Amino acid sequence: MQQNTGKVAVIGLGSMGLGIAKTLVRNGWDVAGCDLSASVREHLIEAGGAAYDVPDAAANGRSVVLSVVVNARQTETILFGENGVADGMAPGSVFVSCATMLPDAVRALAARLEERGVHYLDAPISGGAKKAASGDLSVMASGTAEAFECAGPVLAVIADKVHSLGDRPGAGASVKMINQLLAGVHIAAACEAMALAAKMELDLEAVYKVIRGSAGNSWMFENRVPHILEGDYTPLSAVEIFVKDLGIVQDIARTNHFPAPLSAAALQMYLAAAGAGMGKDDDASLARVYAQLSGAQLPGDDT
Amino acid sequence: MQQNTGKVAVIGLGSMGLGIAKTLVRNGWDVAGCDLSASVREHLIEAGGAAYDVPDAAANGRSVVLSVVVNARQTETILFGENGVADGMAPGSVFVSCATMLPDAVRALAARLEERGVHYLDAPISGGAKKAASGDLSVMASGTAEAFECAGPVLAVIADKVHSLGDRPGAGASVKMINQLLAGVHIAAACEAMALAAKMELDLEAVYKVIRGSAGNSWMFENRVPHILEGDYTPLSAVEIFVKDLGIVQDIARTNHFPAPLSAAALQMYLAAAGAGMGKDDDASLARVYAQLSGAQLPGDDT
Repeated sequence: MQQNTGKVAVIGLGSMGLGIAKTLVRNGWDVAGCDLSASVREHLIEAGGAAYDVPDAAANGRSVVLSVVVNARQTETILFGENGVADGMAPGSVFVSCATMLPDAVRALAARLEERGVHYLDAPISGGAKKAASGDLSVMASGTAEAFECAGPVLAVIADKVHSLGDRPGAGASVKMINQLLAGVHIAAACEAMALAAKMELDLEAVYKVIRGSAGNSWMFENRVPHILEGDYTPLSAVEIFVKDLGIVQDIARTNHFPAPLSAAALQMYLAAAGAGMGKDDDASLARVYAQLSGAQLPGDDT
Repeated sequence: MQQNTGKVAVIGLGSMGLGIAKTLVRNGWDVAGCDLSASVREHLIEAGGAAYDVPDAAANGRSVVLSVVVNARQTETILFGENGVADGMAPGSVFVSCATMLPDAVRALAARLEERGVHYLDAPISGGAKKAASGDLSVMASGTAEAFECAGPVLAVIADKVHSLGDRPGAGASVKMINQLLAGVHIAAACEAMALAAKMELDLEAVYKVIRGSAGNSWMFENRVPHILEGDYTPLSAVEIFVKDLGIVQDIARTNHFPAPLSAAALQMYLAAAGAGMGKDDDASLARVYAQLSGAQLPGDDT
C-alpha cells in the first residue's frame, strides 16, 4: 500500500479521470475532483472523494493537480481560463498534464506555469479505462526533477510503469504521439487485413488464431480483432480519438518536414469511418468501412 | 524424437531450405536435397544428406517432396520444367509447396498434380532462417486429408505449429498473404515511427523501451527496431522480399476489388528503398529512406 498520501485534485472525471480519482481514494488520498457532469461528481462522492463543478474549487490548496482532459485547448482553459487553477496553486506545487497534445503546446503551457514557480509534469497516459480503474496505467513523463519529485507519490499509485523521459516538457507528449502513430496504423492494418480475409471468404477465427502466433501480430491486432469477430462495435475506444491523435501526428510530421505516408493513409480511413457516421463507435469500425467499400461480409452483417 | 521417418526430398537449399533439410537429417530422415549452388550442396552432404543439382534426381522414389523456393514460377519449373519432379513422383506421394504465391496459382498447380494422383499440400512457412534451422517453423497448410496424412510426419519435424486451414489448396497461401500484409505494414510503420522520433531528436533507446511495453507494440517493431538502433542493415530479411510479398497482396486486393490503402502505402516505401539501392539490405532499411527524405539522423549515420 501507498504510505505517502496527501491532497490531490483530479480535473476531468471521464472514463480515465474517474478511475484515477477512485484509485487515489482507495489508496488513502484526500481527493477533490472536478467535472461538469453532476452524475460523475456523484460517483466520486459515493466513492469517498469531494467533487466540484469548477477547477479552482477542486485545486485550491492541493500540492498535486492532475489534469485528465483531452487536448491542449481544454488544458489551457483549466489552467488559465475562468475559474482556472493556476492562480490558486502555491509555488512548489505541481500540475500533472495527461492530455495528448503537440509538444510545442506543452512547452508553452509549462513555461507559463514555471514563471509562477509552479512545476509542470508532461505526463500522457496509456492503458485505457480498465487500467485507470485498477491503477495500472503507463505514464510517459518528462519534466524537471522537482516536478517528478512532487508528482511521484501520485504517479506511484495510478501507474505500474512510469517512463522518465528527461527534464524537457514535451518529450512525454512526443513519445506518446510516436505510440499513437503506431497504434493508429496497427488498428487500420488489422481492419484492412481482416476485411480482405473476409472478402476472400477465409475462416476469420482461424486467421485470427494463426496471426496471433505469427510475425504479423500486434498489440492492437490481438486487442481489436475480437470486436470484429463478435460484430460488436460498442465503443471501448472511439474512432474520433484517432481522428484527433493521427491528426496531431500529421501536424507534427508536417511541422518537421517529415513525410509520413503510413499514418497519413491510416488517418484517411479514420476520417472515412467518422464521415460515414461511426465517429463515436469502436475504432474497429474501420473494418466496416473496408467491408462497405469492397462488399466483404463481416460477422454480424445482415446476409 | 520423431520415430516416423522415411525418404524426403528438399528442393531449394536457401537459408530456409538448408535449415529444413538439416533438421530432417538430424531427426533420422533420409534426405536428398537439390540446389544449383555446389557450396550449399556440400553443406548438406557434410551434414549427412545427399544432394543433386537437378530436382528429379533428388525427388526420385521419395514419398514426400518439399519445395522451398520463392514464388509460383519457380515452383512450376520444379514440378513441370526440364528435370521437373512431377513425372517421377508415384501416385499417393505428396508435393509440399512452401512458396508464397497467389491462391489462384496454388489451385492451378494443385489441380495439375492431382490429375496424376499426386497430392499437393499448400504449406507456406513463417518464422525465418533461425526457426528453420531449429525445426520451429510455423506452417499455414491446406489440402486434402490424404495430403495432410502423407506430409504429416515431415511437418511434425520441421514445425512447432501446423495450422490446418481446410481442404482447399490456396487457403494456406491466402492466410500467409494476410500475415504478410500485416508484417509488411508493421515494419514500415516501425520505420516511420522511429525515423520521426529521430527527426524530433528523441532518445531512440527510450522510445523503443516505452513502445515495447505499450499499445503501439508489434512483433515486427520488437524484432526490427534493434537493427535501426544498432545502425546494422545486414540482411536478416531483405527489402526485396516485401517488394514481392506486398506486390502479391496488392494483386490479390485488386483482383478482389478491395481497396487496401495501408499496404499500398507500405509497398511504396519498400519500392523506394529498393529503388534507392537497398533492395538486398535488411528491411529495416526503410528507416534510412525516411531519414534521407526528412534529414533525420539515425544511429550509424555520419554526422
